Amino acid sequence: MDRGSTAQWRMIKYDDGRALETDDEIAAEYPFTLRVDGEEFATIVCTPSDLHDLTIGFLASEGVIRAASDVESLTLDEDRGFAYIRLHRKQSTGKINYAKRFIGSCCGKSRQFYFHNDVQTAKTITSRTRIGADRCLELMRLLQNGSDVFRQTGGVHNAAICTEDGLVAARSDIGRHNALDKLFGHCLRSGIPARDKIIVFSGRLSSEVVLKTAKIGCGILLSKSAPTDLALRLAEDLGVTCAGFIRGTVMNVYTHPDRIVFPSGNETP
Amino acid sequence: MDRGSTAQWRMIKYDDGRALETDDEIAAEYPFTLRVDGEEFATIVCTPSDLHDLTIGFLASEGVIRAASDVESLTLDEDRGFAYIRLHRKQSTGKINYAKRFIGSCCGKSRQFYFHNDVQTAKTITSRTRIGADRCLELMRLLQNGSDVFRQTGGVHNAAICTEDGLVAARSDIGRHNALDKLFGHCLRSGIPARDKIIVFSGRLSSEVVLKTAKIGCGILLSKSAPTDLALRLAEDLGVTCAGFIRGTVMNVYTHPDRIVFPSGNETP
Repeated sequence: MDRGSTAQWRMIKYDDGRALETDDEIAAEYPFTLRVDGEEFATIVCTPSDLHDLTIGFLASEGVIRAASDVESLTLDEDRGFAYIRLHRKQSTGKINYAKRFIGSCCGKSRQFYFHNDVQTAKTITSRTRIGADRCLELMRLLQNGSDVFRQTGGVHNAAICTEDGLVAARSDIGRHNALDKLFGHCLRSGIPARDKIIVFSGRLSSEVVLKTAKIGCGILLSKSAPTDLALRLAEDLGVTCAGFIRGTVMNVYTHPDRIVFPSGNETP
Repeated sequence: MDRGSTAQWRMIKYDDGRALETDDEIAAEYPFTLRVDGEEFATIVCTPSDLHDLTIGFLASEGVIRAASDVESLTLDEDRGFAYIRLHRKQSTGKINYAKRFIGSCCGKSRQFYFHNDVQTAKTITSRTRIGADRCLELMRLLQNGSDVFRQTGGVHNAAICTEDGLVAARSDIGRHNALDKLFGHCLRSGIPARDKIIVFSGRLSSEVVLKTAKIGCGILLSKSAPTDLALRLAEDLGVTCAGFIRGTVMNVYTHPDRIVFPSGNETP
């Protein structure tokens, strides 16, 4: 956990008729502005951890870069909340049809999606990676147990890239899309191929989350939460296996179930 | 519940080692585009219910209108997902510094906030409304029990405007900010004053949620979920009483606790 991901707050805890003043650990919310080649590109409100990963993952998600090596330099000013990015191949960010047309479901307004940049970066997944159903349950347990910030604050989303054997890397953020961008950035910076991996995620399966999974290049998306119909229609189109409501011994598999191996005795549905 | 708030999906339920194909009810995700005086203003991904309320509440949140009567006409094309709005006093939506600068925490990108429109519409709350601590717990129970869509899909956020005695109106959406906008729109359209009311909310207390509460004009915000530090600093500044983690007999009061009446026997902290 990075310095500054949580903050102390004095509060009154009311429990069973008794009010007690006590200190609480809460999630930090940090405005972080990206300037690309001298132009202000975007400001993200996020958890102040893994800011290099977030920057790279966000730029890749938005189609500004395709590889970490497209970035000539990246300088962080953490105190003021700025990232200064220089690209090898200059492009006006004005060319990117940004911040228009689409508003995501989890906020009021959100990054535009699948009308402009997304059609360029989201590809149909043809991965043949498969995973056992009980391993899916176990990966979700590992994700939930592994997050310090979540245990302390209850206020963050977690995302991990995994093999069937366990978590390869995990990232947290108060913004669920930020958690995925941090993971994407980490994979790009570390050269971790996503094609044969699994993404395990605490947040809801909205259309944007499915699109981001396809951009990362991963074919299996496992979530603790509920899906939407638009997310599932996209997942069918993009070839992403979506499972949700993974809690304890239960999992709902919504799309492309051929990548999930059920225990013998179950007919392949 | 409106027609279309949920959809059927054929899925495989894996439970305790058994995989069964079954139908699931899932939350609908609906792109909804607002055109103001002939210009495209924004597209919101939302739950397709209470679209009149959402339109009015969203425009008021963004500072485009101040009252429902500022709208000359509002026509919905539900099949295509469009709202056509005419204002009495024409204004270029270009004048509104929209979709730039700030990106909310719950998505990657979100409506800009408190640098442009928000300073115009968020006001410091001076309401003297108070509420008993145990009533807060009860209002949260009423909210959670009252949501059909949530019970069916697990995929929506709920917001209600309440008196100490109970819920006055409740709205649901897959987007937590949309749920608040629908509530705001309902209050504006029905002439319900918010000043002496309480907002009960299922989602996290981010800075944007606190800002929206201040815009609605409500002084008490009760949430089932966790807060962020930025949200609490804003709530202190704006005079909003924030309580979070309201579950069973427990509640954490973070800001302006003077509006919460604790049972006698507790020292006023």
